[in-house]
Amino acid sequence: MQFTIERGALLKALGHVQNVVERRNTIPILSNVLLSAERGQVSFSATDLDMEIVDTAEATVSVPGQITAPAHTLYEIVRKLPDGADVELKFSAGDDPRLAVSAGRSRFALPVLPAGDFPIMSSDHEGVSFSILRDDLKRLIDKTRFAVSTEETRYYLNGMYLHTLSEDGSNYLRAVATDGHRLALAEMPAPEGSAGGPGVIIPRKTIDQARRLLDDGTGYVELTISPAKIRFQLGNASLTSKIIDGSFPDYGRVIPKNNDKVMMIDTGILAKAVDRVSTISAEKSRSVKMAIEPGRLTLSVRNIEAGQAVEEAEIDYDNDSIDIGFNARYILDVMGQIGGEQVELRFADASSPTLVLDPADNGVQYVLMPLRV
Amino acid sequence: MQFTIERGALLKALGHVQNVVERRNTIPILSNVLLSAERGQVSFSATDLDMEIVDTAEATVSVPGQITAPAHTLYEIVRKLPDGADVELKFSAGDDPRLAVSAGRSRFALPVLPAGDFPIMSSDHEGVSFSILRDDLKRLIDKTRFAVSTEETRYYLNGMYLHTLSEDGSNYLRAVATDGHRLALAEMPAPEGSAGGPGVIIPRKTIDQARRLLDDGTGYVELTISPAKIRFQLGNASLTSKIIDGSFPDYGRVIPKNNDKVMMIDTGILAKAVDRVSTISAEKSRSVKMAIEPGRLTLSVRNIEAGQAVEEAEIDYDNDSIDIGFNARYILDVMGQIGGEQVELRFADASSPTLVLDPADNGVQYVLMPLRV
Repeated sequence: MQFTIERGALLKALGHVQNVVERRNTIPILSNVLLSAERGQVSFSATDLDMEIVDTAEATVSVPGQITAPAHTLYEIVRKLPDGADVELKFSAGDDPRLAVSAGRSRFALPVLPAGDFPIMSSDHEGVSFSILRDDLKRLIDKTRFAVSTEETRYYLNGMYLHTLSEDGSNYLRAVATDGHRLALAEMPAPEGSAGGPGVIIPRKTIDQARRLLDDGTGYVELTISPAKIRFQLGNASLTSKIIDGSFPDYGRVIPKNNDKVMMIDTGILAKAVDRVSTISAEKSRSVKMAIEPGRLTLSVRNIEAGQAVEEAEIDYDNDSIDIGFNARYILDVMGQIGGEQVELRFADASSPTLVLDPADNGVQYVLMPLRV
Repeated sequence: MQFTIERGALLKALGHVQNVVERRNTIPILSNVLLSAERGQVSFSATDLDMEIVDTAEATVSVPGQITAPAHTLYEIVRKLPDGADVELKFSAGDDPRLAVSAGRSRFALPVLPAGDFPIMSSDHEGVSFSILRDDLKRLIDKTRFAVSTEETRYYLNGMYLHTLSEDGSNYLRAVATDGHRLALAEMPAPEGSAGGPGVIIPRKTIDQARRLLDDGTGYVELTISPAKIRFQLGNASLTSKIIDGSFPDYGRVIPKNNDKVMMIDTGILAKAVDRVSTISAEKSRSVKMAIEPGRLTLSVRNIEAGQAVEEAEIDYDNDSIDIGFNARYILDVMGQIGGEQVELRFADASSPTLVLDPADNGVQYVLMPLRV
């Protein structure tokens, strides 16, 4: 195998794939990237056995072939090479096989493992395929991923549930994430061809990697979803991932439908006030109490050790008074995703889930479970 | 005690002092900042018992007095208050004494401890006093502090040795730091009044805090040095610190005087080449070999696991060939402080200390101990 490639193109391709590679691996070849050189192009693959990213770049290939080499080391070397350099990568089998990397007056020899040992995800998976604008997929991810659970025990919550549904004769593509304490839902009109596909729980790491790739380019993403796998095709890069084998809970039951106590407040004012009073909340619960009465919200935190904080804000509210408590972190996470200047909170009572709506985006819903205060 | 102060002025003063306060303290009052309000101004003091920073700010004081309150919490609250807000701080003794902090519609009550319990460093220490330009003191610190040891056992190396000396009829103020593997020295003509003062080992934490304060302002710093303490007066802020009670080694003996093998190289080229080859050096020793011959430097790293790297560079050198090894990190630390486009390395042989000089600044000297390669 032998090819020459511009440093920028090599860095971009390696940058796309190397993030999948874990820092520590018990299986040595999982630390490596698979280089496959054929006529005029080279593909780069990395995997953690659950997920695989492949990117391709143009290169001047003089000898086609395949080999694997340490992904992070190769990436670091290329990152440190001067901008615009031509990099030659060459591998020839022998007594002491090495991948030779050279550029200008720099020469590196990296240890290799046979390409034949590199685990490749089966690429023949069937499924529902459709195109979605990058910005639309970014929105579904950004509005929901903060609520993905990190608790290992409820593994079926460790991902974003992506599915289609039909309501009032229209089809929607919807993303939902919850950790049992809060829930985030974002939807959009179902892209052409997506309706009827299976609902899948996409693991957190896959979501994070996909989100990273989405930043690097414009236009459409091709999604292919089967009951066992999901594939994102983004330009030259593709990400294929297993999905979480479990049932996502019937989240519809926890989204309150009849919360009739409606409070409107300036999003920035609420976020900043919650941030300030939470300064003195206890590290763990970060509990903030909201006392809501017509025209006025009083936020307060009482902490035996750290003192107390009280903050008032004007609100648009003309219903019964409520005292209700929330985790400050969860309120701030939601406020971070509200696009509108105002945010709408719909309460039932102090012990029931609260619905948060964004007047600027009627395709999102957030649910916050109250804390006892 | 009661005063009103502009949020920006309060934030700046608290910012100056709160860094001294450790995150965890076994003595509760060390987590607090001492507020002392008197006619038209408030002073803020924080200490870790080894070091004390005091800053003052203008304020509208309606009731003079003193109290202590949690430094980090108070700083965080003020940081989150809106720009330009007027902040009122009020303390009145009672059954449940609290420091009341209010601004706009925000009100906080923080726990307090009596001002009388707050440890104050004696401010009556005599010593040699002199003025030094902030930029000059920054230079002495920046050129040397990277070499300060972090090994607890040789506590007398855990600081920067600041002292004056006379050479060829001129007086110099000199800073030296070493960890036994490398040494950094920076000097300047002795400021008026500094000659004859005691040499002091300024602890690393003090150096770091002083360096932070130096960034916030211009003009002169007043230094007062006694055998037990050092005091930096920077505008309204003052830092008083114990110095390390020990003898700094006779560093002059390790600075080679007769290294006659002189190599000149482009600073950036050397730094980048060392950075690249060290990518594959073993984590711990980070050993890089330099093969020096007339006109050519060959850098190489051989690592059984990670492969090998070779890099060549042009040098100005016309002496005997040498093979010598260094810790890559140490070379990079020094290169980071070289102001000139070229850097001068003076070698004796492969096992003797190497002298590094900056053609753009004849007031600095660096010594690197070679590694066996």
